[in-house]
Amino acid sequence: MIDLEILRRVQATLEERRKAAPGTSYVASLYAKGTDSICKKVAEEAAEAIMAAKDGDRLHLVREVTDLWFHSMILLSHFGVSVDDVACELRRREGISGIDEKKSRTQEHGHE
Amino acid sequence: MIDLEILRRVQATLEERRKAAPGTSYVASLYAKGTDSICKKVAEEAAEAIMAAKDGDRLHLVREVTDLWFHSMILLSHFGVSVDDVACELRRREGISGIDEKKSRTQEHGHE
Amino acid sequence: MIDLEILRRVQATLEERRKAAPGTSYVASLYAKGTDSICKKVAEEAAEAIMAAKDGDRLHLVREVTDLWFHSMILLSHFGVSVDDVACELRRREGISGIDEKKSRTQEHGHE
Amino acid sequence: MIDLEILRRVQATLEERRKAAPGTSYVASLYAKGTDSICKKVAEEAAEAIMAAKDGDRLHLVREVTDLWFHSMILLSHFGVSVDDVACELRRREGISGIDEKKSRTQEHGHE
Repeated sequence: MIDLEILRRVQATLEERRKAAPGTSYVASLYAKGTDSICKKVAEEAAEAIMAAKDGDRLHLVREVTDLWFHSMILLSHFGVSVDDVACELRRREGISGIDEKKSRTQEHGHE
Repeated sequence: MIDLEILRRVQATLEERRKAAPGTSYVASLYAKGTDSICKKVAEEAAEAIMAAKDGDRLHLVREVTDLWFHSMILLSHFGVSVDDVACELRRREGISGIDEKKSRTQEHGHE
Repeated sequence: MIDLEILRRVQATLEERRKAAPGTSYVASLYAKGTDSICKKVAEEAAEAIMAAKDGDRLHLVREVTDLWFHSMILLSHFGVSVDDVACELRRREGISGIDEKKSRTQEHGHE
Repeated sequence: MIDLEILRRVQATLEERRKAAPGTSYVASLYAKGTDSICKKVAEEAAEAIMAAKDGDRLHLVREVTDLWFHSMILLSHFGVSVDDVACELRRREGISGIDEKKSRTQEHGHE
């Protein structure tokens, strides 16, 4: 079974790239372009995941969800948070209500 | 440090809900509604993550990225794949080129 | 041939709803919920248009693009602009470069 | 007041570009790349409109909604439909229920 620590290794590499000069890699350049460019990539990868799902192409779907998670991690790290915060949030929800968090969050906070 | 195994526990719970009767939970109902409804949620959560980023609200960003990953995992499991496949894909990329996978994938497959 | 003035009539109706009490209609309620809720609808309708296109379902595509334009008009009017501003922008581009505006805008402003 | 016929002129130009050789313009190239590439642009422009709204930048919002409509028209024309079909759909809704079409459509078809 694959070790999920890979996510943390990816996050660590992202952190390194964030401090590197813009021209040195795709990721360093994307950080340098800023929030809007990173968000645009998140939107684009979400659309590609949706299209892969519509095609029923599982291999493509895995690739596009990977791209989506990867760019979400860039977005998180751009704001000083990380996959660990996502893991914490999932654990918090697990504590409250299992996975049907949306419902309990609504009751808790009046958030839709 | 939070154990990333939480992702695999969430995936396992999703699998259970997928087999349950539609009315029994939010997730079971979403599976029953099918691909388009799940994809719509992925698009919606991506938009919410983008808006949280634009607000510079880190707590909200973590929540929305968590929602995005959560609904991506529903989409994966709807097609018989999982977070393990995403982890494998990340590891494959790590092997090839570190995190700047996009570039090497382009060279490999002519994929944009 | 259908008169495109329908777009301006829709815009005028939106303006009326914007001033009405929130509970009086779907549109009045959406205005009252504010920017994030309107933006979420735009993202959702874009995703639905994409899924209709992937299905190759022309009737559904027309409906979803209509929903997308309709909610874009709500967003415009929420910020005090309108379909007339979109028409002006299209005419400005027509003057510059025909429809391949993106290219000339890049040259003009360094915008991607 | 700007003549909304500009939308029909843009549509006519798009039709011409659709029949032209791929390399001759941005639009001709986009048609040649096919459905997924056009859909990706629609998703991207929707995200940019949302970000412009979040910035409260009206000029930018008008530009991004224009880009969104422009690329929606490419998508429509890629499937043999057009802005006239959108206008018809709006008029049909106007006949039924004014602009709060969603509600009556739900009652009519059980569509969400």
